[in-house]
Amino acid sequence: MSYNLLKGKRGIIFGALDENSIAWKTAERVHEEGGTFVLTNAPVAMRMGQINVLAEKTGSQIIPADATSLEDLENLVSQATEILGGKLDFVLHSIGMSINVRKGRHYTDQNYDWTQKGTDVSAMSFHKTMQTLYKQDAMNEWGSIVALTYMAAQRVFPDYNDMADNKAYLESIARSFGYFFGRDKKVRVNTISQSPTPTTAGSGVKGFDGFIAYAEKMSPLGNATALDCANYTVSLFSDLTKRVTLQNLFHDGGFSNMGVSDAVMSAFVDGIDK
Amino acid sequence: MSYNLLKGKRGIIFGALDENSIAWKTAERVHEEGGTFVLTNAPVAMRMGQINVLAEKTGSQIIPADATSLEDLENLVSQATEILGGKLDFVLHSIGMSINVRKGRHYTDQNYDWTQKGTDVSAMSFHKTMQTLYKQDAMNEWGSIVALTYMAAQRVFPDYNDMADNKAYLESIARSFGYFFGRDKKVRVNTISQSPTPTTAGSGVKGFDGFIAYAEKMSPLGNATALDCANYTVSLFSDLTKRVTLQNLFHDGGFSNMGVSDAVMSAFVDGIDK
Amino acid sequence: MSYNLLKGKRGIIFGALDENSIAWKTAERVHEEGGTFVLTNAPVAMRMGQINVLAEKTGSQIIPADATSLEDLENLVSQATEILGGKLDFVLHSIGMSINVRKGRHYTDQNYDWTQKGTDVSAMSFHKTMQTLYKQDAMNEWGSIVALTYMAAQRVFPDYNDMADNKAYLESIARSFGYFFGRDKKVRVNTISQSPTPTTAGSGVKGFDGFIAYAEKMSPLGNATALDCANYTVSLFSDLTKRVTLQNLFHDGGFSNMGVSDAVMSAFVDGIDK
Amino acid sequence: MSYNLLKGKRGIIFGALDENSIAWKTAERVHEEGGTFVLTNAPVAMRMGQINVLAEKTGSQIIPADATSLEDLENLVSQATEILGGKLDFVLHSIGMSINVRKGRHYTDQNYDWTQKGTDVSAMSFHKTMQTLYKQDAMNEWGSIVALTYMAAQRVFPDYNDMADNKAYLESIARSFGYFFGRDKKVRVNTISQSPTPTTAGSGVKGFDGFIAYAEKMSPLGNATALDCANYTVSLFSDLTKRVTLQNLFHDGGFSNMGVSDAVMSAFVDGIDK
Repeated sequence: MSYNLLKGKRGIIFGALDENSIAWKTAERVHEEGGTFVLTNAPVAMRMGQINVLAEKTGSQIIPADATSLEDLENLVSQATEILGGKLDFVLHSIGMSINVRKGRHYTDQNYDWTQKGTDVSAMSFHKTMQTLYKQDAMNEWGSIVALTYMAAQRVFPDYNDMADNKAYLESIARSFGYFFGRDKKVRVNTISQSPTPTTAGSGVKGFDGFIAYAEKMSPLGNATALDCANYTVSLFSDLTKRVTLQNLFHDGGFSNMGVSDAVMSAFVDGIDK
Repeated sequence: MSYNLLKGKRGIIFGALDENSIAWKTAERVHEEGGTFVLTNAPVAMRMGQINVLAEKTGSQIIPADATSLEDLENLVSQATEILGGKLDFVLHSIGMSINVRKGRHYTDQNYDWTQKGTDVSAMSFHKTMQTLYKQDAMNEWGSIVALTYMAAQRVFPDYNDMADNKAYLESIARSFGYFFGRDKKVRVNTISQSPTPTTAGSGVKGFDGFIAYAEKMSPLGNATALDCANYTVSLFSDLTKRVTLQNLFHDGGFSNMGVSDAVMSAFVDGIDK
Repeated sequence: MSYNLLKGKRGIIFGALDENSIAWKTAERVHEEGGTFVLTNAPVAMRMGQINVLAEKTGSQIIPADATSLEDLENLVSQATEILGGKLDFVLHSIGMSINVRKGRHYTDQNYDWTQKGTDVSAMSFHKTMQTLYKQDAMNEWGSIVALTYMAAQRVFPDYNDMADNKAYLESIARSFGYFFGRDKKVRVNTISQSPTPTTAGSGVKGFDGFIAYAEKMSPLGNATALDCANYTVSLFSDLTKRVTLQNLFHDGGFSNMGVSDAVMSAFVDGIDK
Repeated sequence: MSYNLLKGKRGIIFGALDENSIAWKTAERVHEEGGTFVLTNAPVAMRMGQINVLAEKTGSQIIPADATSLEDLENLVSQATEILGGKLDFVLHSIGMSINVRKGRHYTDQNYDWTQKGTDVSAMSFHKTMQTLYKQDAMNEWGSIVALTYMAAQRVFPDYNDMADNKAYLESIARSFGYFFGRDKKVRVNTISQSPTPTTAGSGVKGFDGFIAYAEKMSPLGNATALDCANYTVSLFSDLTKRVTLQNLFHDGGFSNMGVSDAVMSAFVDGIDK
């Protein structure tokens, strides 16, 4: 589908790794809707992925940036506005990483250097990105900034480990910075709290398949896919949602407001009876 | 603006009274986006309003219905599908009324017959509407049902009186019925919690002007207008938001996540110093 | 245990049916803590229960009252203050009933006369009780009013039927009235959102045993019992919690902030594999 | 008042600086209720305060500890259990510090080294404390861990700066660790979200007096004082609240559930009219 919803709009998309990425799907959909953008990712992530394919497909340039480095971010933002020919209308932050998760350190046995690194990459990078955009006055009025998050910020999912706390931190940054970005620049800032999604990054989490199935059976409309998320992000970048700001928006087939579904209860009862 | 977002989609719009109504603006925007619909309102409200103007402008038919009457709703739904030529894709419920508010009865001195009548009109009507749609199997898969609400459902606004409780009841009905509508028919159900809006209905609330100003100064992006709300509703009727369900979505320039703004604090300090 | 936490405090306890009732346990604990009170229940409920045993055990008088009748409530409040020798310090509202649940009517097929009756008994009765207390100026400063509720007010539990909406309505009434009761009389009003509890009333809900087991396995501390709830209520009646008001307090072993526990996930995975 | 609620219970109290501190008042109240404890604070904070006075008054020993240092925390916990003669029943974490606030750096112009330091002191220290308690198996079953927080974790208070994000991070840690502490050790973990309180630490925040007045007028029961908070903490340490866990508990005279009060609206209207 294509509606020209983002015609003439310019932006930056962080975090497209491969075609399973939500950021990848978003880049494709933004392109279809007429938006132009610069792609960015950490140098290390770029080596692993196929971002060049996406850049070619969407006619975009790639500017590598370590999102924890102010210098890299300043370069990214100034280059992006130059390449795209003006201030920005949208930014997608889709970045998250926990070394404790990767290395299998339990939540009750954290390596705090790793915890701190994860916080910097997963949450503080969002503040740094917005601070850079704000200081460079790089956003157009009624622009839209979106970061991806997960409901572990509100409720316990044991295997999500320290990413839960990073996401809570990220969502708070969205509110806190969103106030100043709204008041001073008329820019909106929101987070999308997405269903568990079988991306290359997500697959690293322990017991992920079981969890995907659980969320699928809990959600009255089933899990939201990466493409669904791309579509939702397009709506948040469009002029249809100009007064939505400071919100954490659940995009999850209804999971977030379920206590229990008939399908989960039925599997549960079968499981404990075994 | 027009993007053809709702091309080929059919629906029912409740509650368009006059050109200040959110439902009125929504009807205009849905029409611009290619959707077709039936307009409905209570017979008494229709006599007060200019709904015929809207019907003509949007090429729509009007079917009067008392939304507390199952018989009227059954007639409305069956006629609407017949007139529009198929099952429905969207429904807007924009109905609310408190006799205690109208007659100036304080919240601590309710007339309970009036309270019950207000609950029936403002909240139970939403259940009745959905039950009728569900029983007639009148919604297409991935259809979207939206009801308008207000943040008094979560927090105290003293002058909002028993409408606060009615809205809490309404939002719960959205979740409860949304589960079954999602599971059984793949239909999404959400509520939009809108900024205070200077509609003809809203103006009845005591101290409404002061309150509009307060919300305006509290919200980093200012109050959402009726037109903004119409745009947001369009996004929720569109295919961009197919997995959003059971949500109460704040559409309020950021008000809902503010503790206090600089502007409100400044006026407050001036006010208590006087 | 006994700490004399409620020495000299007077109150009314609604809803003690039999020794499984939360209200029954609360009456026992309040008595142990030195509080005096009047017991009340609907005439029909009193015939079914053994409230006389409780009255004797706690040295309390019983005043039957239909909590939907203003006349009965006015009589109850004026008699209670007379019997107890002064204004009241605490009130427990533990009342709920859905005819749709009892008669097995599905949520998508409600009998609206029954729905309305359930709303009146389960939620509006709380407003009527507070309005009566407020008008008679029957509460002492820093008094405490508590109503019992359930998390279905926030999230979907399919078998909870229209009681979910009644509880949302009840919780909103607690906030709305709590504002005026706090501002004008320095009285606090809160709701306790309790674990599913195997009371005589609770047992009526379909699939209740499976649900109790699910909640038990989801909650890191297991389900809160009726006695636990009585203790928590005592803390809310005591002077230790004087500034807690307008809150919905989850008392559930942690259930409300769980996404999923290891134990539930394990049973779920076993169940879907079967 | 004194009820012997904490007779025989042992614990650690972090963060008593001077007699305005919430931790100070809590130590006094816990002592009155029969609890015994070790006091701790950062070496630098101890030089500024009068903690010796408190230690003498409550018959407590002081063990200095930098709560960001695992070594210090390990020493603290092992010494505390030795001094007190057994495992612990309660812990109060009342620690927070932002260099950006102290040095007047605006939220949109953060020094990220300072931000990271603030996160470590204000939030990560809570994880480190719990990890140390958990690894040493230093808590008794049904023990209670409480951290103090502020509603800026949920909503924007512009002058609260990066402490808002630190508090969101802290509250998430309470939930995440609370799951494991509940499941494995039957220990509860909660945060108290307290009214703005005129402590020596709080006074550092810009515009604090105006804000105290605003919160006072917004809250139907007025702001909760440090002593009120001490009482509430006692209730959470007691056996009356054994199944309350993973909760963020607002202790604020009702502020958190207010949209606007009559008193604030009145001052606001006067203020903008000036």
